[in-house]
Amino acid sequence: MSLTVLIAPSGFKESLSVKDVADAIARGVRRAAPHATILTAPMVDGGEGTTEALVAATGGRMIATTVTGPVGEPVASFWGLMGGNGPRSAVIEMAAAAGLSLVPRDRRDPTLTTSRGVGELILQALDHGVERILIGCGDSGINDGGAGMVRALGARLLDAEGRELPEGGGALERLDRIDVTGLDPRLAGVRIDAAVNWHNMLLGPRGVARIFGPQKGATPEQVEQLDRGMTRHAAAILAATGRDVAGMPGAGASGGLGAGLAGLAGATLHPRFDIMLDYLEFDRLLSRADLVITAEGALDGQSPYGKVPCEVARRAEALGIPTIALAGSIGKGARQTYEHGIGAYASIMRRPCSLDKAIDQGAKLLRAAAENAMRMLLVGERLATRARA
Amino acid sequence: MSLTVLIAPSGFKESLSVKDVADAIARGVRRAAPHATILTAPMVDGGEGTTEALVAATGGRMIATTVTGPVGEPVASFWGLMGGNGPRSAVIEMAAAAGLSLVPRDRRDPTLTTSRGVGELILQALDHGVERILIGCGDSGINDGGAGMVRALGARLLDAEGRELPEGGGALERLDRIDVTGLDPRLAGVRIDAAVNWHNMLLGPRGVARIFGPQKGATPEQVEQLDRGMTRHAAAILAATGRDVAGMPGAGASGGLGAGLAGLAGATLHPRFDIMLDYLEFDRLLSRADLVITAEGALDGQSPYGKVPCEVARRAEALGIPTIALAGSIGKGARQTYEHGIGAYASIMRRPCSLDKAIDQGAKLLRAAAENAMRMLLVGERLATRARA
Repeated sequence: MSLTVLIAPSGFKESLSVKDVADAIARGVRRAAPHATILTAPMVDGGEGTTEALVAATGGRMIATTVTGPVGEPVASFWGLMGGNGPRSAVIEMAAAAGLSLVPRDRRDPTLTTSRGVGELILQALDHGVERILIGCGDSGINDGGAGMVRALGARLLDAEGRELPEGGGALERLDRIDVTGLDPRLAGVRIDAAVNWHNMLLGPRGVARIFGPQKGATPEQVEQLDRGMTRHAAAILAATGRDVAGMPGAGASGGLGAGLAGLAGATLHPRFDIMLDYLEFDRLLSRADLVITAEGALDGQSPYGKVPCEVARRAEALGIPTIALAGSIGKGARQTYEHGIGAYASIMRRPCSLDKAIDQGAKLLRAAAENAMRMLLVGERLATRARA
Repeated sequence: MSLTVLIAPSGFKESLSVKDVADAIARGVRRAAPHATILTAPMVDGGEGTTEALVAATGGRMIATTVTGPVGEPVASFWGLMGGNGPRSAVIEMAAAAGLSLVPRDRRDPTLTTSRGVGELILQALDHGVERILIGCGDSGINDGGAGMVRALGARLLDAEGRELPEGGGALERLDRIDVTGLDPRLAGVRIDAAVNWHNMLLGPRGVARIFGPQKGATPEQVEQLDRGMTRHAAAILAATGRDVAGMPGAGASGGLGAGLAGLAGATLHPRFDIMLDYLEFDRLLSRADLVITAEGALDGQSPYGKVPCEVARRAEALGIPTIALAGSIGKGARQTYEHGIGAYASIMRRPCSLDKAIDQGAKLLRAAAENAMRMLLVGERLATRARA
């Protein structure tokens, strides 16, 4: 029988990239079902690897460039032009211009680092005449609320005396108002979607400065300074545009980049996998698929809460398409995923072995697990045939 | 849809009895497919646990008794009357009367230990008027070629002067002839089947004395003495009955008990799983089943060579019924089982963990693996339904 399998996995943390995962699963499926048609939708979260994965999945191209890095010096960067039949689309991962990995360890001071490079990438996308831009948030090394980005796009951040503030989140505690008159007029003609963690808030006890400041190098005093700055930033955005980012879900994403994007650049924030699935034209892929295979490093009781396997499975279930999940580790509470569209799951483990060894052999184990699962499905098909006979 | 699952596993060595394994799989299957009809055929190899498993599977009963143990003293023993609709059948495991575990560690001298108790169990079965007797060979603590057993049944083993030999394999080097005139006449009216390892030879470099003597406590000199005795034993059997056990496959099983059974007691030797499957009426169970689930501690490149999963799968395949296998560990070469009727396999492992922990949680892991596999099969059924739609 003809069978179309849509492979929509996450990467395996610290072990396999999403491309490695998808490739391993595809190889395993082909061994068991050589004639199956295989579609791929790599599920990325907006952080590092997002651009490459979307470009590869849609047959687009990567564009290498140089932008202002998070510590103010030029860095090699990139963005992507997506392929496919949809609107002409750019994909930008903020980490490619302002990621934590671009901040030298001895300069990890989030009162100073800037998101300016993200704005420069947006300008390049605008220069290419795209109709829409997807901005992936994640793995950031800044805490400037997108101040650097919107400056690159033409906004001015002023203190009470009307002087421009220096770069960095630390100066925002002196922010008085934002002048948006100089913003690039092309922003009005483009759709900007940002993929954010929906739970990242901008302000307060669960706000971005307090939750993420320390891991970007902020001292306790700097955390308070940054939070004060974000509060002034939100007030200034409200005054300048009427948009209230103070309690907006996702406004705190990537050091508050979400606030700058939604408040000043005209972007819409989306739960990250929702928008990722849209740009991947996931529903169109689904409409061709008989089966979805998803995967993540671990499947457990947390999986229904925003993790890839259940996000994918819910969409598939809505179209009546079964989903199976493969995981490096099946943890406590994994059974809950049955209530969220996962029809069956399997671990990639084949025998007692250490975590290190499992990680070392990850791709091989995953390929074998995909083959075994596919074979199990084919036996199930035979059962149905027997039942009919 | 209605679904009948035949569970036909082996035990997991040093971890789970065959009953534990079958129970765990049944529980897992029921969680995924509550309405499935479950049949069970525990696969035992003739050694310890054989009687209990066959009695339980057929709804028969255990009969406790006392017999002469391997060191000549009385031991608590048992045999089984099988249930079911077939011929009235007894099942005897030789280890219950002459097993290595009945020989105290300080008396492990296979020149002296005797199989007499096995003959006493056969007499009890004859007293019960059974039509056939299955004798499981394995886990023996003797090396007397079944001499003790046939003596209990009425034979006399004589030296050149016509004197009866003492018990034990050591005396057989002085065996001159066997007088079978006193054998219990009821033996002629009963069918005796012995389940043996087909590769256990009686004599020579791969003979029972050389291969198994040392692990029963024989010194190198005793090994040679026992092998000389077996050679004389085979010659005496040939002279007395015309039956040639010297090169007979399985004649060396259980310290040469196979030779005594086939040569003097009128038994037929069978590859152990073949005859076990017959007594379990496996083909009748298969004819009711849609699916077979088998299991063993390890599945690997050795599995096609006489291990339970492939023995079971070959029988099922002959009737067009798919088989899946569950295993604690999937080892090198497991793919070869695909050529021997295994449609798909899965490990019970769910995450990286040590062997000790896996053994400790064996039943729980197996139940979960059975549920997961069953769920995978049900997803496969859905695929077939989609394909038809």
